[in-house]
Amino acid sequence: MNPLAQQLNETLQKESPNVYAMLSNLGKAIYFPKEGILSQSAEAKTKATKFNATIGIATEGGKPMHLKLIQDTLSAYNPKDIYEYAPPAGKPELRSAWRAKMFKDNPSLEGVSFGNPIVTNALTHGLSIVADLFADEGDAVVIPNKNWENYELTFGIRRGAEIVEYPLYNESMQFNSAALRDALLAQKGKGKAIVLLNFPNNPTGYTPGVRECEEIVAAIHDAAEAGIHVVAVTDDAYFGLFFEDSVQESLFSKLAALHPRVLAVKVDGATKEEYVWGFRVGFITFASESQATLAALEQKTLGIIRSTISSGPHPSQTFVLHALQSPEFEAQKAEKFDIMKGRANRVKSLLDSGRYGDTWEYYPFNSGYFMCLKLTTVTAEDVRQHLLNEYGIGTIALGQTDLRVAFSCIEEEYLEELFDTIHKAVTEVAAR
Amino acid sequence: MNPLAQQLNETLQKESPNVYAMLSNLGKAIYFPKEGILSQSAEAKTKATKFNATIGIATEGGKPMHLKLIQDTLSAYNPKDIYEYAPPAGKPELRSAWRAKMFKDNPSLEGVSFGNPIVTNALTHGLSIVADLFADEGDAVVIPNKNWENYELTFGIRRGAEIVEYPLYNESMQFNSAALRDALLAQKGKGKAIVLLNFPNNPTGYTPGVRECEEIVAAIHDAAEAGIHVVAVTDDAYFGLFFEDSVQESLFSKLAALHPRVLAVKVDGATKEEYVWGFRVGFITFASESQATLAALEQKTLGIIRSTISSGPHPSQTFVLHALQSPEFEAQKAEKFDIMKGRANRVKSLLDSGRYGDTWEYYPFNSGYFMCLKLTTVTAEDVRQHLLNEYGIGTIALGQTDLRVAFSCIEEEYLEELFDTIHKAVTEVAAR
Repeated sequence: MNPLAQQLNETLQKESPNVYAMLSNLGKAIYFPKEGILSQSAEAKTKATKFNATIGIATEGGKPMHLKLIQDTLSAYNPKDIYEYAPPAGKPELRSAWRAKMFKDNPSLEGVSFGNPIVTNALTHGLSIVADLFADEGDAVVIPNKNWENYELTFGIRRGAEIVEYPLYNESMQFNSAALRDALLAQKGKGKAIVLLNFPNNPTGYTPGVRECEEIVAAIHDAAEAGIHVVAVTDDAYFGLFFEDSVQESLFSKLAALHPRVLAVKVDGATKEEYVWGFRVGFITFASESQATLAALEQKTLGIIRSTISSGPHPSQTFVLHALQSPEFEAQKAEKFDIMKGRANRVKSLLDSGRYGDTWEYYPFNSGYFMCLKLTTVTAEDVRQHLLNEYGIGTIALGQTDLRVAFSCIEEEYLEELFDTIHKAVTEVAAR
Repeated sequence: MNPLAQQLNETLQKESPNVYAMLSNLGKAIYFPKEGILSQSAEAKTKATKFNATIGIATEGGKPMHLKLIQDTLSAYNPKDIYEYAPPAGKPELRSAWRAKMFKDNPSLEGVSFGNPIVTNALTHGLSIVADLFADEGDAVVIPNKNWENYELTFGIRRGAEIVEYPLYNESMQFNSAALRDALLAQKGKGKAIVLLNFPNNPTGYTPGVRECEEIVAAIHDAAEAGIHVVAVTDDAYFGLFFEDSVQESLFSKLAALHPRVLAVKVDGATKEEYVWGFRVGFITFASESQATLAALEQKTLGIIRSTISSGPHPSQTFVLHALQSPEFEAQKAEKFDIMKGRANRVKSLLDSGRYGDTWEYYPFNSGYFMCLKLTTVTAEDVRQHLLNEYGIGTIALGQTDLRVAFSCIEEEYLEELFDTIHKAVTEVAAR
């Protein structure tokens, strides 16, 4: 074991033995090599006032060397915010700005002890860091049966974890916290579980209400009380896009100080919230009462980042920081929110209008980019193909019954024609 | 084993059993989930001419939704080239442009069969993909004793591989191909070795000459003949910055069809070559005579990308593509090359001027961003600290004797003062 890794592990064993117990073998072995080139460069950055010959980039006239033909297209930005490496943890100003935004969007974070958000190459990268740090072969990853398919690859295939599914909805079509509780308690033999909480949910667009959230938190508390070490991850990819009376905050606040055997991890990002999917700017944030534990988890996270991508894209981080600091940001974001909400509401009023009879049911939705129809008489794949081939309409078939419709990419005025055509297609497939 | 992974493995077993034998357990298990959301979206992209409700982004007026305050700063670019997700493999036009550049920069690639470059989040990411696909616990990773420290983390800590070092230089201060050969042949018991060939070398700035390269290739050939499966990776991070009479092409061409038991992998990128470190745009490219093998390796690479970062930064890819397609690109790049070459030559003429007596030796260098002094009378760390604290000069100490100086970030006119001061510092530390 590398001495730096050992130091971090000793800190965790002393400060948060339960968190130490959650680490994977890789999580135990990883460290950030702060004694090498990176630390010497950091030292030089403050002290080398005459010449700094440590830098792994090329400079010219005190600025990063760059081609004019690129800079001409990015003249709104300073070369140092574009061409230089971003630090492995991300631009410090961006980390602070995102932390401030977390407080603003989640008033219940007031008084909660959590770390500085660490910049990731967007949500998947945050999830894969969780997988690297905490998931070993056979560890349980508890997710609902309506989930983002990439969890399987990130946790299951890549880390060998066991995916444990529970039904997302109960019989009254609310969040099935009893099933979550059972799925967690079933991990008692393993003594450990990673639970991924993704609200607004992909693919259903569902976010639970206040009482349901209390039940979720209670289920996790019960599992911890039963002796299970729970890594409780909120995948807040679609955060903020709440259109009805669901909770409007991340569950992270409630999980942060829930129980010594619960480690709350928030995975979020600008990707969907700020409509910058291709930028690849996300964050991973840990909660702990212990500052030493937060520091150790940050070092281990940086070790994973350093050994997989070194650092994230600097231009993207600069663009997101620019947005967050811009006085027009709130107004422009609200404008887009209203468009998305208008579409979601239109979909719901169409579905509730009675015009589609009993052709389908729909899963409760109130947030995010998507909704899912549940087809009762035909298979989703047949309808998907019929829609595509006969009507030039693209949808996503999930399993036997579910058809995912992204209202995020259909203008409000076309939603009626879209759902009328889906209805027609279902009828036609059923009549074949 | 997932059926898609099994298909890929069967293809490799049939087409290139030696390549199959090189795969790690993760390399065997990984696949790209082309039957899920991604493939349905891809199908819709071509066929959903009426409404496409598959997209995981939000759109408005047929364009990706975006905030005006961001687009105002990026008006040189079309929103579709900035905000949408880049494909997991990278922008197709960028992949083609990079492939064309590979041919132009490496005339000996003519007639060589190799795959389309797959876009990575820069060099580290390419290396970590190699580690994921090919390195298992205890596998040998053969590198010179002067190397980039991040290899240890990426291959050693993260994947549990065994780092095997050989001396970079022989007694006549040329590349030590005999030592490389011995290090490779010592892996006969394991039957497998990953060899990382990094020229221009970080930290020494050394690139071998023609005869030395022939010896390197022969050493790898001998290892393959001895029954060892060799994953031969060229880490071409500093490619193109050749200032003297070393080889001017990547070793990839010579390794591509060397032996059935050799898989050549090229890891390169725009990062250092085009002076865009923070952009995070790199590539990984495989060589094989078999198109089916290349396709299978691409699918497995995409599986790793999908499960770690999903996709790379789209703005960065668009900026690099813009540069590669720009008529001024060659001229502007040549201008920067001349600056770097001027600095390298100035360093060498200073070192060869005799003014520093026998205070130090220097390792042969002829390329890249760096050079290394070998201090004979004092420790590198003592000199580094003295330089930093007394003179405000930042350098990197590597081991007991080596001091890395990045001439890439010191203007030519200051190099004399820089080396004179280092000389003074060495003398002062020696006199303490």
